[in-house]
Amino acid sequence: MRALQYRIIGSAPEVVDIPTPTPAAGQVLVKVTAAGVCHSDEFLMSLPDDQYTYGLPLTLGHEGAGTVEALGEGVTGLQIGESVLVYGPWGCGRCYPCSKGEENYCERAANLEIKPPGLGAPGAMADYLIVDDARHLVPLGDLDPVASVPLTDAGLTPYHAIKKSLPKLVPGSVAVVIGAGGLGHVAIQILRAIAPCTVIAVDTSEDKRALARKVGAHHAVASDESAEEQILELTGGRKVDVVFDFVSIDPTTGLASRLIGVGGEIVLVGVGPGAVKVGFFSTPWEASARAPYWGSRSELIEVIELARAGKIKVEVEAFGLDQGPKAYERLAAGTIPGRAVIVP
Amino acid sequence: MRALQYRIIGSAPEVVDIPTPTPAAGQVLVKVTAAGVCHSDEFLMSLPDDQYTYGLPLTLGHEGAGTVEALGEGVTGLQIGESVLVYGPWGCGRCYPCSKGEENYCERAANLEIKPPGLGAPGAMADYLIVDDARHLVPLGDLDPVASVPLTDAGLTPYHAIKKSLPKLVPGSVAVVIGAGGLGHVAIQILRAIAPCTVIAVDTSEDKRALARKVGAHHAVASDESAEEQILELTGGRKVDVVFDFVSIDPTTGLASRLIGVGGEIVLVGVGPGAVKVGFFSTPWEASARAPYWGSRSELIEVIELARAGKIKVEVEAFGLDQGPKAYERLAAGTIPGRAVIVP
Amino acid sequence: MRALQYRIIGSAPEVVDIPTPTPAAGQVLVKVTAAGVCHSDEFLMSLPDDQYTYGLPLTLGHEGAGTVEALGEGVTGLQIGESVLVYGPWGCGRCYPCSKGEENYCERAANLEIKPPGLGAPGAMADYLIVDDARHLVPLGDLDPVASVPLTDAGLTPYHAIKKSLPKLVPGSVAVVIGAGGLGHVAIQILRAIAPCTVIAVDTSEDKRALARKVGAHHAVASDESAEEQILELTGGRKVDVVFDFVSIDPTTGLASRLIGVGGEIVLVGVGPGAVKVGFFSTPWEASARAPYWGSRSELIEVIELARAGKIKVEVEAFGLDQGPKAYERLAAGTIPGRAVIVP
Amino acid sequence: MRALQYRIIGSAPEVVDIPTPTPAAGQVLVKVTAAGVCHSDEFLMSLPDDQYTYGLPLTLGHEGAGTVEALGEGVTGLQIGESVLVYGPWGCGRCYPCSKGEENYCERAANLEIKPPGLGAPGAMADYLIVDDARHLVPLGDLDPVASVPLTDAGLTPYHAIKKSLPKLVPGSVAVVIGAGGLGHVAIQILRAIAPCTVIAVDTSEDKRALARKVGAHHAVASDESAEEQILELTGGRKVDVVFDFVSIDPTTGLASRLIGVGGEIVLVGVGPGAVKVGFFSTPWEASARAPYWGSRSELIEVIELARAGKIKVEVEAFGLDQGPKAYERLAAGTIPGRAVIVP
Repeated sequence: MRALQYRIIGSAPEVVDIPTPTPAAGQVLVKVTAAGVCHSDEFLMSLPDDQYTYGLPLTLGHEGAGTVEALGEGVTGLQIGESVLVYGPWGCGRCYPCSKGEENYCERAANLEIKPPGLGAPGAMADYLIVDDARHLVPLGDLDPVASVPLTDAGLTPYHAIKKSLPKLVPGSVAVVIGAGGLGHVAIQILRAIAPCTVIAVDTSEDKRALARKVGAHHAVASDESAEEQILELTGGRKVDVVFDFVSIDPTTGLASRLIGVGGEIVLVGVGPGAVKVGFFSTPWEASARAPYWGSRSELIEVIELARAGKIKVEVEAFGLDQGPKAYERLAAGTIPGRAVIVP
Repeated sequence: MRALQYRIIGSAPEVVDIPTPTPAAGQVLVKVTAAGVCHSDEFLMSLPDDQYTYGLPLTLGHEGAGTVEALGEGVTGLQIGESVLVYGPWGCGRCYPCSKGEENYCERAANLEIKPPGLGAPGAMADYLIVDDARHLVPLGDLDPVASVPLTDAGLTPYHAIKKSLPKLVPGSVAVVIGAGGLGHVAIQILRAIAPCTVIAVDTSEDKRALARKVGAHHAVASDESAEEQILELTGGRKVDVVFDFVSIDPTTGLASRLIGVGGEIVLVGVGPGAVKVGFFSTPWEASARAPYWGSRSELIEVIELARAGKIKVEVEAFGLDQGPKAYERLAAGTIPGRAVIVP
Repeated sequence: MRALQYRIIGSAPEVVDIPTPTPAAGQVLVKVTAAGVCHSDEFLMSLPDDQYTYGLPLTLGHEGAGTVEALGEGVTGLQIGESVLVYGPWGCGRCYPCSKGEENYCERAANLEIKPPGLGAPGAMADYLIVDDARHLVPLGDLDPVASVPLTDAGLTPYHAIKKSLPKLVPGSVAVVIGAGGLGHVAIQILRAIAPCTVIAVDTSEDKRALARKVGAHHAVASDESAEEQILELTGGRKVDVVFDFVSIDPTTGLASRLIGVGGEIVLVGVGPGAVKVGFFSTPWEASARAPYWGSRSELIEVIELARAGKIKVEVEAFGLDQGPKAYERLAAGTIPGRAVIVP
Repeated sequence: MRALQYRIIGSAPEVVDIPTPTPAAGQVLVKVTAAGVCHSDEFLMSLPDDQYTYGLPLTLGHEGAGTVEALGEGVTGLQIGESVLVYGPWGCGRCYPCSKGEENYCERAANLEIKPPGLGAPGAMADYLIVDDARHLVPLGDLDPVASVPLTDAGLTPYHAIKKSLPKLVPGSVAVVIGAGGLGHVAIQILRAIAPCTVIAVDTSEDKRALARKVGAHHAVASDESAEEQILELTGGRKVDVVFDFVSIDPTTGLASRLIGVGGEIVLVGVGPGAVKVGFFSTPWEASARAPYWGSRSELIEVIELARAGKIKVEVEAFGLDQGPKAYERLAAGTIPGRAVIVP
């Protein structure tokens, strides 16, 4: 079968032919219908040799959709041909966080060397994918796999980030979304679907601000020196309840820190080097900050239900598997509106 | 191997010899170290032929502890010899409740004919037990299996019942526990361990009231016509915040209904025919009622941690496997203080 | 000043002239801009002499809006002329529920003989209204008082009922609203504004079903024998997550009981004689029922914010104060779509 | 009457004679039975002229207890002679946080120039105290005012800090309390009363570590370079779930940052200059930090109930009003175990 692999540190990924895998006991072989392209892939391919820990060659793709092709021994409760999404942050399934389906926070994954597909285990950018356990497959039903595959990360990650902040997003509250790209433009839709807050997007790109407005942001503001002033004008001078920062670099975490109000929350979702200083003389009373990671199994089910109800829709551009390297070029150039998806 | 089986409708269970099972792919063979005796077993053995749906012969025992004896193909992350408790309410592992570890509320178990051990699948009252999936085994560490095996039901069921009511059990609140038997006497300890409320136990038996006091109830009241009056005297006339009814027959649900205050909660844990009428003219404003079932995987881990910290301790009386039928006789006679445990 | 008073048990209310009151220390005199007409008023006027406890004569109107006319001694923080809504369920302000703004559940109101305006204290159907404490006045800003006055009950009551059920209303969930009248048609809008659930309305009247659809219900079903079947067809056979019953009579509580699923919730909002039997053999596992009352101070602020954001809009028909008796006639005849409002 | 006042920037407070105040409409005159001495008083008296904003002369004392002496016009629901505690963080009573009793986060206090007693308004270190509104008085019943007065801050502040973290303090979790002084030694007791976590105290002083153990800490560790190692040894290498830092200087916030685990929480309670850097590469996933302030009205009621149930007990040393200056000297010298209380 074909697979898009990262093979040499510092080089672009390549499409290669490798043997089609066979599912061992407990595993499931999935015929890939779609695989999402993500900035995290870029990030890992940018790491120098001594910091790269994902193994080589690495079949990329931590966002995966497919149909059940074959069941390893002992697997039950799945139908051959069933359309599924792959829950990516695989964990041990038994530790305390895993017992609640929060495998993204598994306590034993590192020790047991469990790695997500595309981030250590062979990923979804191939004709077939091995999934380690049936519990990592969520029924997709008749939703389009190409449009839906980004739900597994670009949908799940902001949903998880937002869900814990919901109690703060009461009527009259204001949420700011910094970065209206692959994850941010989904965050805006999720906020509009599940919370009655006002949503203000911030982005450097006019195209992305236009996308933000199109998908539901009440306002979209340029990410420049005037951003704070513009936002406070929109809120009538009231500080902000929750800031979701999908960029997480010093200028954005700085903006977040200046915007946040008493009891507010700054959620750093972007995998960037920025940080927020929290303290009695640094942040308003009871304002908190946190940096969540990916999401839980039940949250993925909820995200799919949002999509099924038509409440969220990821902007996607499809590429053939052979065009995979080009998709990463386009991503790096910043010319993908929404999310790129590989369709084998 | 030996197994205590219910074989003929209406007859007592018998110890028989059956082949030792072999774990199929994905399964785990557990060498049983302890198995708890429960009123639910009595209940199912009391059912007439046309209402009995658990299959015959049925190896009893839905509370199980053991050591990992052998792994089916594809099972990882478990050590041979590891001491474990068996999470009993097996579900499909993939539906929405299961994705949060709430397999007790699995949406597909009935359709997929998944049944808990001892309640359809072969149970723990045998030398060996087949567990369908590694995720149903929770590490016990160096805790005593005989003292700990009731945690899987007699501990987990009240813990689950109490946990959802925690927000109501603020300082100054009052919880009433009706029935201080196998589950009730653990409920009292859990309440004392995790909530700052006053705990009032109600039981018909002076022995059980003494047990209630011994394990931490602030007060224990006879379950007779004066119970309501006695309780309101203890609270200074204030109605009660939460009532946990481990009996659930008309007199106890009636008492619960009369005791409950504005915003309170009645939790029917006992598998009895009683019910609570909720309505604008039937119950105080915002008082609620519910009848939960067993508990979730993460809750079982929490219960074990309570035991590990010495905060709960189930009163147990041990019986050999061959004495199993006698244990059920004693249970029926009401002469087991706490919980009977079969030790193969 | 003029006041619409209930003066003789069993007779219609009358417009009379009474002295304009003067605010004592701590009180506020409000010039009424709007007062809502409610089924509860009908209910109290239907009570026989021996059950009527609201005092005579009684100026009606527990939904009030106005402008601040004069401040009693010691009142600060209010501007003369400020537009306000009156929070109706007055409490002592100091007991435990009141300390959280849940004056609707005040523990001392009965003992201290504190009664809501229009339900014991003189109500808002008059040119002027005395409000006992500034904390019972919520700023309305530039919202229209006539369109907004029903928020104080027809908005607040369903909002309070819904808010506690929010954790169950995840994506993919289904809420059923029985009764799409004065409160129900607002409940539908609130659900659409703050939860991603599917909303199914049930009503006997085709007009109200049309109203339900217009204000956002995904489906509206006739309240007849086929209602259960129709609803389960809409959900694909899946039971319902939350039922809000704004009628609360035997047929509707019966429907609610048949529809509710595992872990679901039945919320009886209508002041009717119906009740729900909750028990292990009566309701699905962990399904609960409760009958809330009115709402809290912070919830009223949230409801006003929903209106300010354009997310809820009460259908109103305005009547002059002199037409008050006629408004009650029309209400009794069931020919008010939405809510009748008295405008002095 | 006598009052302990801060009169000259940089000088020690003095006992002076001032006129006994008279309660205006809406106010209550309280005869002081006890007033707590707090590090915050020291802090404000250490401020240079240009940073001091509390007014001069300032009667100290933001922790107050007393009996109701006289009611201003319009005040109801209080009995003359009733024993009360004074809720200190006075707010407007009407804004959104105040509507929930969270007057500590009042949105209008600054604009309306509302200040807490002893922190702008005349405080409790006097024979009599004016309280601006009856809602700021919480019934104390027959509890000892001297032992109870610190509950209003030294009890309420840690209680508020802990309450929001409760969902993380499940069985098996670990809480670290840094600083076992006036607030910290109450925090330890609150944790033991309302959560089943293991409590590890950290302090530089052996006396305070002894106090920590006496009031319930499972372990007490010296606050030196080995603290991290010692704590991780106690937890078996497991990171910590919640750190409550009652000191909040660089060494303690640094320790907190190194100790915290995935999903954990750092709560900075001490009014110190330390801060925690939160970010994807700075803190474990989903670990959060916040710096709360004082507490809400309902939380004060809950704290009093904890004391009434004997679950918390503040160590106090009593001083006459004339000894007030000496109490502050002793506080500065660090020789007060627990809390100093002025008894007029």
